[in-house]
Amino acid sequence: MSRRLLFNVTACQLGIYVKSSRCKGVLTVFGTMALDTTRTPFRTEERIVGGAATFGSLAASAFTKTAMVAAIGEDMPGDNILALQKKGVDTKGIVTVKGGRCFHYDSSFDYNLSSRTTLKTELNVIADFDPVIPEQYAKSEYVYLANNDPVQNIKILKLFDNPKLVVCDTIEYWIQTAPKKVIEMIGKTDGVVINDSEARFLCNEANLAKCAKKILSLGPKFTIIKKGEHGAVLFDKEGQVFPAAAFFLDEIMDPTGAGDSFAGGFLGHVARKGRSDFRTMKEAVIYGNVMGSFAVEDFGINRLLALTQNDVEGRYEKYRNLVQF
Amino acid sequence: MSRRLLFNVTACQLGIYVKSSRCKGVLTVFGTMALDTTRTPFRTEERIVGGAATFGSLAASAFTKTAMVAAIGEDMPGDNILALQKKGVDTKGIVTVKGGRCFHYDSSFDYNLSSRTTLKTELNVIADFDPVIPEQYAKSEYVYLANNDPVQNIKILKLFDNPKLVVCDTIEYWIQTAPKKVIEMIGKTDGVVINDSEARFLCNEANLAKCAKKILSLGPKFTIIKKGEHGAVLFDKEGQVFPAAAFFLDEIMDPTGAGDSFAGGFLGHVARKGRSDFRTMKEAVIYGNVMGSFAVEDFGINRLLALTQNDVEGRYEKYRNLVQF
Repeated sequence: MSRRLLFNVTACQLGIYVKSSRCKGVLTVFGTMALDTTRTPFRTEERIVGGAATFGSLAASAFTKTAMVAAIGEDMPGDNILALQKKGVDTKGIVTVKGGRCFHYDSSFDYNLSSRTTLKTELNVIADFDPVIPEQYAKSEYVYLANNDPVQNIKILKLFDNPKLVVCDTIEYWIQTAPKKVIEMIGKTDGVVINDSEARFLCNEANLAKCAKKILSLGPKFTIIKKGEHGAVLFDKEGQVFPAAAFFLDEIMDPTGAGDSFAGGFLGHVARKGRSDFRTMKEAVIYGNVMGSFAVEDFGINRLLALTQNDVEGRYEKYRNLVQF
Repeated sequence: MSRRLLFNVTACQLGIYVKSSRCKGVLTVFGTMALDTTRTPFRTEERIVGGAATFGSLAASAFTKTAMVAAIGEDMPGDNILALQKKGVDTKGIVTVKGGRCFHYDSSFDYNLSSRTTLKTELNVIADFDPVIPEQYAKSEYVYLANNDPVQNIKILKLFDNPKLVVCDTIEYWIQTAPKKVIEMIGKTDGVVINDSEARFLCNEANLAKCAKKILSLGPKFTIIKKGEHGAVLFDKEGQVFPAAAFFLDEIMDPTGAGDSFAGGFLGHVARKGRSDFRTMKEAVIYGNVMGSFAVEDFGINRLLALTQNDVEGRYEKYRNLVQF
C-alpha cells in the first residue's frame, strides 16, 4: 500500500475531505430515518426511531466507516442522532427539514411475527427531498441505497464519483407506484438486496431462482433474496448460488429493521474486506444474518446500539459451528 | 462385530427371519400408500401412486434395508409394488384389502407451489386397518411411523420388539380429530419429524423454538421441524439446534412427498450409521434435505425411482460445497 493511499484512508476515516482521493472502505447509506409505530401482539411502541438507513448504517458501522444521508423533520429527538454518532456513524449527511415532520411508518405484526400489515405510511419530509451528500462522501467506495424513492436514488447516484460497489433495496410501495424507475435504478447498481415477497412482486414470478435471474438480467452482478426468519439466498451472474439459513433465535421481540440490518452487515463486511468475490460475499451474507438476528432481539434500534465487536464476531463463530455438519 | 451378529445382519437383509436375532440397520416404515390426485398450476395427474410410507420407504431404501407396512385397495396398479421392490423395498408388509379402495388424496398447489389446498381425503382401506407386521420385521432396529392414524400407530408399535429408535410424523387432520392420541403417540417415540405449520397447530404456539420445546416435553429426545423450501431445523433435548437451508433448485415440479422423503432420508442415514448422536443427526438432516430435493423434481415418485447411489452422494457433496463459507 502506498504512503499516499495510507494517508487518504486516514483522512477519510477522520472525516477530512481530501480532493481527488478516494474514501477507501467508506460506505455511504442513503435512505429513510423514520419515526415508527410498531405493534406486535405483545407490545406497542409509538414513534420510535427507525428507517432503512438508520438500521443499515448502524449495522454497517460495526464493520466499516459509515456515513448516513437522510432527511428528517424537526420532530426527531436529537438523542437519536447522538446515539448514531456514538456508534461511529457520520451523521453530517442527515438534513433536518425546517418545519417538516419525519417519515412515519405505522405497522402491526401478526401473531407469529412473520407477516406485517401497514397501517399508515406518511412520507412527510422525504416526499420532496432533494438529496445532497457531504462533499467528502462523494468519493465513497461503497454506496447503499436503502429502501427509498427510486427517483431520488437515481439522482443521488449521480453525485457519487464512480463508486466501487452500489447496492439497492426496494419495497412493494415503489414497485407499485414507480415500476419503471425501480427497474432503471436497479440497472445502475451492482447488487440488489430484496425481500422474497417483493422479488416475486417485482418479477411477477413465484420461483425465487427465476426471480433472481430476472433481476440479474436488469444489470446487477449479484442479488440477495432475503427470506426473513428463513435466511437468505445469494445469486450471482455466473450462476453461483449460496443459500444460508438464518441464525436461530428462541425469542424475537420486533422484526422491524432485520432486512436493513442484514444489508448493512453484508455491505459493511464487503467494505472492510475491500472485495466482492463470491467467497467474500458468502461471508458477508452470514454477517448480514448475524446483524439481522441482533436487530430483532429488542424493539427498534436498541439492540444494535448496545452491540460490541465481540458480540458480532462471537455470533459469527457461533453460527459457523451451528450450521457445520 | 461377532460372527453371530454378522449372520443376523445377513439373515435380515436377505429377508430370512431368525428367531431372537435383531434386524440390525433395518427400518420398517408404516403409513399410507395412496393414489393421489395432484394439481399444480402447470399440470394435473390423477390417481398416481403416493402416500407417506411410499415416499419414506423409497427414500430410506437408498441408505438401508427398508420394509414397508401399509394397506392398499384392489385399485392399486401392481407395477407400483414391483417398482418399490426393484428399489429394494421389502413389500411383504403391504396388505391388499379385498374389495377395498386405496387411500385417495386430492389436492392442488397455489401458484408458487408453497401452499396446498386439500380438495378431497378418502380414507378408504386405511380407515379400519388393523396393522400387522411380517414377523421378521418385529425385530427392526428402526421404526418410522409415517403420517397415519395415531391409534393405529400406537397399536403397531406394540408389535415391535424394543426397537432402537422410533420416529413419527403427523398432520393437521389427526391433530384436529384425535389430539390426545397424537400426544400419546408422540410420548412413545424417540423423535418427531413434523411440518412447521403442523408444529404450530399442535403446540398452539407461533415460535418454532418454543414448539420444539413443547414437543420435546412430551417425551421424544429430538424433533425436526420441516419448513418446505426453507429447509429444516433439528432440536434435541440438550438444547442443541441445527438449522439447515434447503438444497436450492431452479425448478420444482411437484412438492408432494418432499417431507416424507426427508424423513426417509434422515432415518435411512441414521440406520446405516447405526447411531443417533447429534453429529450423525446433522448429517442425516442434510441427507433428508437431499432426498426431499430429489422428490420434488418430478411428479409423484418418478424421481425417487430413477435415483442412483451416486446421485444421492453427489448431491450431498454438492450441498456441502454450496453452504460452506
